[in-house]
Amino acid sequence: MSNSFSKTLASQPKKLILVRHGQSEWNEKNLFTGWVDVKLTEKGRSEAQRAGVLLKESGLKPDILYTSKLSRAIQTANIALETADRLFIDVKRTWRLNERHYGDLQGKDKSEALNQFGPELFKTYRRSYDTPPPPIADDNKFSQFGDERYKEIDPNVLPKTESLKLVIDRLLPYWQDEIARDLLDNKTVLVVAHGNSLRGLYKHLTGITAEEISEINIPTGIPLVFELDSTLNPIKPPYYLDPEAAAAGAAAVAAQGQKK
Amino acid sequence: MSNSFSKTLASQPKKLILVRHGQSEWNEKNLFTGWVDVKLTEKGRSEAQRAGVLLKESGLKPDILYTSKLSRAIQTANIALETADRLFIDVKRTWRLNERHYGDLQGKDKSEALNQFGPELFKTYRRSYDTPPPPIADDNKFSQFGDERYKEIDPNVLPKTESLKLVIDRLLPYWQDEIARDLLDNKTVLVVAHGNSLRGLYKHLTGITAEEISEINIPTGIPLVFELDSTLNPIKPPYYLDPEAAAAGAAAVAAQGQKK
Repeated sequence: MSNSFSKTLASQPKKLILVRHGQSEWNEKNLFTGWVDVKLTEKGRSEAQRAGVLLKESGLKPDILYTSKLSRAIQTANIALETADRLFIDVKRTWRLNERHYGDLQGKDKSEALNQFGPELFKTYRRSYDTPPPPIADDNKFSQFGDERYKEIDPNVLPKTESLKLVIDRLLPYWQDEIARDLLDNKTVLVVAHGNSLRGLYKHLTGITAEEISEINIPTGIPLVFELDSTLNPIKPPYYLDPEAAAAGAAAVAAQGQKK
Repeated sequence: MSNSFSKTLASQPKKLILVRHGQSEWNEKNLFTGWVDVKLTEKGRSEAQRAGVLLKESGLKPDILYTSKLSRAIQTANIALETADRLFIDVKRTWRLNERHYGDLQGKDKSEALNQFGPELFKTYRRSYDTPPPPIADDNKFSQFGDERYKEIDPNVLPKTESLKLVIDRLLPYWQDEIARDLLDNKTVLVVAHGNSLRGLYKHLTGITAEEISEINIPTGIPLVFELDSTLNPIKPPYYLDPEAAAAGAAAVAAQGQKK
């Protein structure tokens, strides 16, 4: 590689694209999902397709895909890449991109949880940066204890509940070791994951505070693009490929938060 | 790991599952496809779903997926794993599992090719073990010259035409370095690929002759299971998860070969 070519590559912004999975069966039923593995609804599939159309129209060409170990993120990625004609790219999956583990809230609907914990604690478990809900019992049917998909992971690191802070703590080692390396290699990276794991990445990349991240709602199925310099700092604010739809989607998520 | 546990693991047969992709848009139109990247038809999607149902019913649990770099194989794998509830497994993609490169035949329909080459050569290019068709020209619109999906591959190893023998030659290094290693690691391996790359693996594993492999037709969408010993030799003949459908499918493929 000639020197001038190396310099050109190094000076081009590195591109990271985040996509939040579309509506799942439990989003629709208004249940706390977390690590429970539920599939996309038809609406969720349409959202994934829209993500693929937006990717294709943007001319961005992901070289590698990262997903969580959860079906709803993997389905979203598969549909989006099929739509964008990029099925052939490399794929890596990791539990470190999973949704926040909701502990004992998993499988409960909002009113059930409100009854059990009372309004104060309920709000804390949903919105606090660093207070996790009570851990889920191993014999709870919504526990992932013994789940075969995590059989290669040290059982001591698998969470039984998480705050957003704990999500960031378990996500960052993977960011540093894997995703950041591909970006430094000038690969365009697509990450398809969940509301809270993506908010964790967002907080890390933008350096906003715990208070500020509580105001950030990432809408489903609309690719969010970060352009990064050679030290992986954003060279400008991240942007959505469909800003109007993103604003409407974020407002809907926020309104949903108010209601419950 | 205790000694007796090691021995138990080592003495269990290693499982390799081969799946040929379902009907593609060009299978339907009766065109030579090779490395041209066409998608599944609706029928092809149903075949992929059937593969997933058969996998699920069998109780076989693939730990890792290998596919070619071609959409029709990747779509088949995605649909089958979604149906079998195994989307979370690791994935590796390689051009070395691609379909045979059909050279100058790519994009031609059968009658066009028959006119161009005459009946004798036409038959040779389709059925001979080691005579490839004429290479495809770089400026042919069905050439993969410059195709971005192969940008990380040394251009000197990418084929412009192939016989089945050449397919096996380029497939075996990957078998040895990657797939065999996962099997030796006692992983259950799923390979979703193409008629000729799977026939190549079949010939290698069973040790049949060039003449014998010409009689083997692998039907689409029916998992074919190899049980292998610790030296990766089959402990019994490979078997289909739905033997009756497989016999009917193979007969249909063979009949198709006669007709053309």
